[in-house]
Amino acid sequence: MKALGLIVEYNPFHNGHLHHLRESQKQAQSDVVIAVMSGHFTQRGEPALLDKWHRTQTALDAGVDLVAELPYAYATQHAEIFAKGAISILSHLQADCLIFGSEIGKISQLHKIEALTRSENFQIQLKKHLSTGLSLPKAQSLAIQDLGYSQKIAQQPNNTLGIHYLKAINELHSPLIAGTIPRIHSAYAETAPSHSSITSATAIRNLLATGQPVQDFIPPSTLKQLFPERLIPSWEPYFASLRQKILTLGPDGLRDIHDMKEGLEQRFYQSAITAQNFEALMEQVKTKRYTRTRLQRICAHILTHTTGAFIKNLDLDQPAPYVRILGMSPTGRRYLNHIKKQIPVPLYSKFSETAHPMLKHEQKVTGAYGTALSPRIWTQLNVDEFSHIPILS
Amino acid sequence: MKALGLIVEYNPFHNGHLHHLRESQKQAQSDVVIAVMSGHFTQRGEPALLDKWHRTQTALDAGVDLVAELPYAYATQHAEIFAKGAISILSHLQADCLIFGSEIGKISQLHKIEALTRSENFQIQLKKHLSTGLSLPKAQSLAIQDLGYSQKIAQQPNNTLGIHYLKAINELHSPLIAGTIPRIHSAYAETAPSHSSITSATAIRNLLATGQPVQDFIPPSTLKQLFPERLIPSWEPYFASLRQKILTLGPDGLRDIHDMKEGLEQRFYQSAITAQNFEALMEQVKTKRYTRTRLQRICAHILTHTTGAFIKNLDLDQPAPYVRILGMSPTGRRYLNHIKKQIPVPLYSKFSETAHPMLKHEQKVTGAYGTALSPRIWTQLNVDEFSHIPILS
Repeated sequence: MKALGLIVEYNPFHNGHLHHLRESQKQAQSDVVIAVMSGHFTQRGEPALLDKWHRTQTALDAGVDLVAELPYAYATQHAEIFAKGAISILSHLQADCLIFGSEIGKISQLHKIEALTRSENFQIQLKKHLSTGLSLPKAQSLAIQDLGYSQKIAQQPNNTLGIHYLKAINELHSPLIAGTIPRIHSAYAETAPSHSSITSATAIRNLLATGQPVQDFIPPSTLKQLFPERLIPSWEPYFASLRQKILTLGPDGLRDIHDMKEGLEQRFYQSAITAQNFEALMEQVKTKRYTRTRLQRICAHILTHTTGAFIKNLDLDQPAPYVRILGMSPTGRRYLNHIKKQIPVPLYSKFSETAHPMLKHEQKVTGAYGTALSPRIWTQLNVDEFSHIPILS
Repeated sequence: MKALGLIVEYNPFHNGHLHHLRESQKQAQSDVVIAVMSGHFTQRGEPALLDKWHRTQTALDAGVDLVAELPYAYATQHAEIFAKGAISILSHLQADCLIFGSEIGKISQLHKIEALTRSENFQIQLKKHLSTGLSLPKAQSLAIQDLGYSQKIAQQPNNTLGIHYLKAINELHSPLIAGTIPRIHSAYAETAPSHSSITSATAIRNLLATGQPVQDFIPPSTLKQLFPERLIPSWEPYFASLRQKILTLGPDGLRDIHDMKEGLEQRFYQSAITAQNFEALMEQVKTKRYTRTRLQRICAHILTHTTGAFIKNLDLDQPAPYVRILGMSPTGRRYLNHIKKQIPVPLYSKFSETAHPMLKHEQKVTGAYGTALSPRIWTQLNVDEFSHIPILS
């Protein structure tokens, strides 16, 4: 069985994802599709619009065969760690190839850039840009431009992510064959629709947040999972909880939080005293050095109480220490039975108290994520975290 | 100037408090009235109905001359520590006498019981009752009964508190002269009014929580401070925040919280997974050994992130390490100027970053308390905590 690997957030699953799925299947001539998916918080440090179980359902409904969880510890980090977690899980699951969307749309070009980023010259340029106080993504983009690439290619976020996938495949000595398909009609960060049937997940979340219709942009199978009482289209509903946590941890407690670099804890603390909503908090905390994405990730770490000591102990440079299945189709189940013995790490289809600390942390993540939902749905998610067995499509 | 000392919560100030104030002034023939008042959380471990600044205003409006804050670290503890904090602050402020309400209404009787509780016999009985798994208040009450007192006298909460005041005066070698006046018409824990103009603060909070009129039971000066958007009549509005904190701290983090005795952290954690409101949480956590009051105090410690290590470092057996003034009348100000040099500890009329850790902790307390209020009022309280100067009546 030829297995196609995808790295996804499906936040929410939309027509662009469907296009990517179909095109990837065609290109790979695959028999089974494996998706590694972020859980309750995304790489941009945002609470997922819809919980991971319902997002898994939308993936299965669209034809994905096996959904594995990208643990919070990888999913809410910068591209390098995110990629390492995702690539290693696809490798554990014996995927043959990875196909991802990119703006550039040509894998040879991305391989070329990735090779160049390993050069000494690139590292020198990168250090130079970092020393001026720029954020890592910005400095990387400028260093790629210094190698002769256009600003456009260097800044497009899916190109960047793709380069990190290739880098992770290389560093992990993964046998995964990478391919890319061009993204169509929509930029990743597009905030309003510009095409009749495809737009970005960000634009869809914005439409939902303002009560506008989204049925043009997502398949009917996704639409029926978007129960209004389960949707969290922004950080705002977490604001009171987040503010309280910042104020009661205080600067000393905040210093223990992962990625809270020196001085930032004071900015968070002082801003939380007066900020009256999440946007105001971000506005007050931001500096040139920290991207909005990075600050949001830190907010997720505060909310989930993810400490620096915890992350350090996990040693995220290594391949993911386990695989957790969130859902599977009959084909996915057959495939899993077939390759089970070749998986080099523990395979979880159910939560376990004796599991790896990285998996146990998902309890806290779900506990924090539920804050914006009704007590009833929150309870259901908590209980699911302990006892859910993979969704069968 | 003869100074009368009172120990109060004024949650909220009502006609019973007014009666107590007038009767105490008469009995003491005082020139100035000093009240030591709990801040944002009360001795029963509940968020105060109204913030401390507005409660201070109601005290001044009723004729109190000087309001000093009983720090959170004393205010949310069992009677022994509560009493030690309050008595030491009154002593620091050179009060001549303390008058408190009690069910028994005779100071000689309370002195007699207090002396008996220092006997070896009492200690033996106390230990015996504690060893059966009873809570401390219950065991104390039974041990007093063993000395020959009626169940009624032994269980009445204001008698108990009064005995602890006398004990603290004794242990701190305070020159305070104690007196008591009989409480009238209302039991402390009365939950519904039984008299036409006086009822308990609990009953008033219940009336407010259910939208019923309270003007019969509180003076007009209090009534005008009870802005609906500032009232917090129960723990319920904190539930999401508290649950999130319990779930993200996890059993390991909960173990660091003050008074979280062995095994209790698991009960809190497991209960928070499914409990859908505060009452359900209390119902699930409670055992014979822990009173509702104690569990509520622990909830306050979780919410304010008050750790056991923090409390231990404060050494609460000692007299209060500072005096913080929340408000004063012109008489109170003259009195304070008069006795200022005799106060053996630092006197704060404004928050200070270099202040004692016990005072700095009030920032966290206010940060937690604000969670149930609008972002605007919360901000105002946070800023007040840093920059408020005493209210002048």
